[in-house]
Amino acid sequence: MEVLGDRWSLIVLRDIMFGQRRSFRDILTNSEEGIASNILTSRLNKLVDNGLLTKAPDPSHRQKFVYSLTEMSISLVPVIVALGSWGRRFLPASDELSIRAEVLENGGQELADDLVNELRRLHLGIAAQDDKQSVLEHLRLAYEDVAKAKRSG
Amino acid sequence: MEVLGDRWSLIVLRDIMFGQRRSFRDILTNSEEGIASNILTSRLNKLVDNGLLTKAPDPSHRQKFVYSLTEMSISLVPVIVALGSWGRRFLPASDELSIRAEVLENGGQELADDLVNELRRLHLGIAAQDDKQSVLEHLRLAYEDVAKAKRSG
Repeated sequence: MEVLGDRWSLIVLRDIMFGQRRSFRDILTNSEEGIASNILTSRLNKLVDNGLLTKAPDPSHRQKFVYSLTEMSISLVPVIVALGSWGRRFLPASDELSIRAEVLENGGQELADDLVNELRRLHLGIAAQDDKQSVLEHLRLAYEDVAKAKRSG
Repeated sequence: MEVLGDRWSLIVLRDIMFGQRRSFRDILTNSEEGIASNILTSRLNKLVDNGLLTKAPDPSHRQKFVYSLTEMSISLVPVIVALGSWGRRFLPASDELSIRAEVLENGGQELADDLVNELRRLHLGIAAQDDKQSVLEHLRLAYEDVAKAKRSG
């Protein structure tokens, strides 16, 4: 709880995991909760110190850095799935924010396992074993459908 | 995450859930992490405000209060089970603190369901349907076995 126990650390992890945001700038400018720049810096450093993220120079821009999930943070998928189901049931949340939780809840163990494997490929550089449909893409499309329906409805 | 996102709120919920501590004094004096009195007051009030606890006068001591879990906080059992499995794998923790997580992990869905039902009986006053063995008692005994082995070994 000391490792995870603050609101912003979990939000930053969620954005890197589901939003596929890998750089400081990308996380900052796309934050739905409007995280402040100094808070983001401190939380990223803390997550790296605690082994939940790694930080490496971006191969295409040596002055920039990319953040990657680790086996430790990827293993939080079951916690995030359980927390999402709970939140959907008990907390008010926008349709956009709860659609991912809904898809993950309905997908059960198999979808969660596929997500873990996909995150390992993307963040740990482990090679793909097959050409399964991307779970992250599936979650992103579900999110965009809901957002689009809301704008037009 | 705003509702749960601080270290102490989850620790207080855990102590009420697994330690069966129901009064301010009981939570304060038995806290393994040594929670401070003013922090405990603020977190209990916040948990009540957010619907995770209810507070009622103690029938036997009208000046005292007892705290009870709600359907909302009892529904966190799957999150706590997932978080416990993760912590056992990735974080250093004493044997005493990780034995509950181990028992819950090995018990699977059935034990988690039994725990939810037992917590509903204890905290929401829902009548028992059968004479199943107490999961809380089971977890307490497992904890004490580990603590005792450690003291004598």
